Amino acid sequence: MPRIQPERLLSDLRTLRGIGAQGPGVVRPAFSATDMEARNWLKRAYEAASLDATIDGVGNVFGRSRNSGKALLLGSHSDTQPTGGWLDGALGVVYALEVVRALAGDPATRALPVDAVSFQDEESRFVGCLGSRSLIGALTSEIEEGAVDRDGVTLASALREAGLAGVPRLSVSRERYAGFVEAHIEQGPHLEQAGRRIGVVTGIVGLRGIRLVFRGQQNHAGTTMMASRRDASTALYELAYRINQEFPKAAAERSVWTMGRARIEPNATSIVPGYAELDLQFRDAQEAPLDAFAAIVARLVAEMNARGGVKIEAIPARAPIAPTRMDPGLQAHIEAAAERHAPGNWQRMPSGAFHDAGIMSASLPSAMLFIPSIGGISHDFAEDSRDEDIVLGCQVLADAAASILSEANL
Amino acid sequence: MPRIQPERLLSDLRTLRGIGAQGPGVVRPAFSATDMEARNWLKRAYEAASLDATIDGVGNVFGRSRNSGKALLLGSHSDTQPTGGWLDGALGVVYALEVVRALAGDPATRALPVDAVSFQDEESRFVGCLGSRSLIGALTSEIEEGAVDRDGVTLASALREAGLAGVPRLSVSRERYAGFVEAHIEQGPHLEQAGRRIGVVTGIVGLRGIRLVFRGQQNHAGTTMMASRRDASTALYELAYRINQEFPKAAAERSVWTMGRARIEPNATSIVPGYAELDLQFRDAQEAPLDAFAAIVARLVAEMNARGGVKIEAIPARAPIAPTRMDPGLQAHIEAAAERHAPGNWQRMPSGAFHDAGIMSASLPSAMLFIPSIGGISHDFAEDSRDEDIVLGCQVLADAAASILSEANL
Repeated sequence: MPRIQPERLLSDLRTLRGIGAQGPGVVRPAFSATDMEARNWLKRAYEAASLDATIDGVGNVFGRSRNSGKALLLGSHSDTQPTGGWLDGALGVVYALEVVRALAGDPATRALPVDAVSFQDEESRFVGCLGSRSLIGALTSEIEEGAVDRDGVTLASALREAGLAGVPRLSVSRERYAGFVEAHIEQGPHLEQAGRRIGVVTGIVGLRGIRLVFRGQQNHAGTTMMASRRDASTALYELAYRINQEFPKAAAERSVWTMGRARIEPNATSIVPGYAELDLQFRDAQEAPLDAFAAIVARLVAEMNARGGVKIEAIPARAPIAPTRMDPGLQAHIEAAAERHAPGNWQRMPSGAFHDAGIMSASLPSAMLFIPSIGGISHDFAEDSRDEDIVLGCQVLADAAASILSEANL
Repeated sequence: MPRIQPERLLSDLRTLRGIGAQGPGVVRPAFSATDMEARNWLKRAYEAASLDATIDGVGNVFGRSRNSGKALLLGSHSDTQPTGGWLDGALGVVYALEVVRALAGDPATRALPVDAVSFQDEESRFVGCLGSRSLIGALTSEIEEGAVDRDGVTLASALREAGLAGVPRLSVSRERYAGFVEAHIEQGPHLEQAGRRIGVVTGIVGLRGIRLVFRGQQNHAGTTMMASRRDASTALYELAYRINQEFPKAAAERSVWTMGRARIEPNATSIVPGYAELDLQFRDAQEAPLDAFAAIVARLVAEMNARGGVKIEAIPARAPIAPTRMDPGLQAHIEAAAERHAPGNWQRMPSGAFHDAGIMSASLPSAMLFIPSIGGISHDFAEDSRDEDIVLGCQVLADAAASILSEANL
């Protein structure tokens, strides 16, 4: 069985951490200067590992094996949240690189074809999972043309700025691959709380978004009497509160919802706001609670609009994500490798966070492996995992990759 | 009686509108380049009107008459809201200039001393009514040192940037003045709805502010279960909603409250926010409803903090404003002038908006005159008044000024 090199793995992770580092965290949003620097670093690392490396027209870094036979695609994403943690997608990206090197270093596995990828914009600066959507041919021109970040920058201008306008875009061929496996930190507390070191992901929760837009009348906060106000912020606070009151009645055990972004115009203490926006996002492993949540929002918006005053519009997010199941055959290989290296110390679990594997599963058999997050903290500078868990996860992935490919190329 | 020159008045108002114009509105926040340009323009206009003009160390433009005897101070402010209307404080500033010129042009009034002023930062970029507070000696070093705008710029650095660091600050001597009169657009719909052309202000409502700070735990919006979240935005929405439910029970007829500014960190759709701020402002002509509102906020905050989770802190704004009454003697002069030029077509009224006259009244007998706002709209690019109302208001102010000073210098 292939042996990964822990020091090489940790050293590469630390190098990647240094690109865009801010204190213990990393600021490397998609297409930023630091993101493109990281992608160019990775491309050189792929080349050094004898992969044919390229950065495609949406920013995916792709390393293709020169070996023949059924291939396995490994990887994750190297872009981060606006104030991100250092491991998030970076872990799976460097794992893929290390597994390529580990298999190449073992005579028994050096002929097996492993491709590696770092997807672009998993973190939704423009379109969540932009890179994997593009790779499977699911990035429609409608989605792409409407893509604007929260500062009003368009995707088209970000591509131009990054030198990617007109660069060819890759797509994956289903015939080439036995499947896709993504390793990732858990980003939640379950493994740590259960005392387990490896999670084998059974499925990924679905996700929908609704942007709520409130249109009222901007006015003076001293002279406009309460009865004649059409205050966009008052409507926002009420709708958000009522959503938080109503959703628990329709929620399943692991349903979550978040209203983490609000914008009020002009956002001044002494002005009755005439315009506001609120982003609502909700997730569950089943469609039924997602449908129920959408119906609650529609009902509350209709009730409030019927009163007159502020006019509320509910705009579904461009790219909803259906709940997906991971491939049972691939899961079995990961489970066997986990049991070999951490006997009794791993578990099956759903993923509450979305991942590129959820997109890739529409095109290729896909699976995921988790390692524990310290304190369950993620999307925060404080995000971290223990070195021994980082090393163990990569070894499990290398074994699983060798085992998947050996079976696929029998 | 002195006659104002309508074309000169309107022309100067339009010139001032041109400094910082954006479409029909004006962007001239305190100490911005456009604000300082407007202040230098005004200083030159004061000099042309034979006033001794100066810009003092907080940015007040002051024009002192060379005539002897009891003087009258006229004026308002030339800074604007971040997206302001063209008349707001500018009207009263140009009225003061025109009244100085009109009285100087009439042999019967040319010996009367009228001083003119444009106060700095009435609109609260740093400290609401900064300039008038400074003029009456009410700008404490505590207020001044804590003054930061919403982009984090300190007052000290804005003063430096504007070239005002170390420049002497003026103060008004109570002995010199018969009083202070500020003309202003109403900024509300009452005069227009009542079909009246002049408002004589009886008093100015008091104003208090509370900044509500919410401290939770930032986390991933997919993996953090609802039960273990400490979501700062959820607490903000709930408290804002409950304030809007509870305040009507304690409100007087003309009480108003506004939560027009909210800040959520990091304000991203897929992140449970760990920090949020909400600014609450409330106004009334009496202290009792203001006390009742403050008590409601304290109770709601205590209730929510008792639950645990997000920790809420309520920080009173640095500069609360007590309700104030306008001087009855000065009001009588304005009423007589209004009746002369618009018989039966004026009314007494409180001011729902705060004004520098509310600060000045602590030091000098003070009064205010309003003209109608079209549609009651203010603090918005759409703010406007009819030319004939603008001209009428200035003529009434000129007559009132002559009459006040004639009586004071008998």
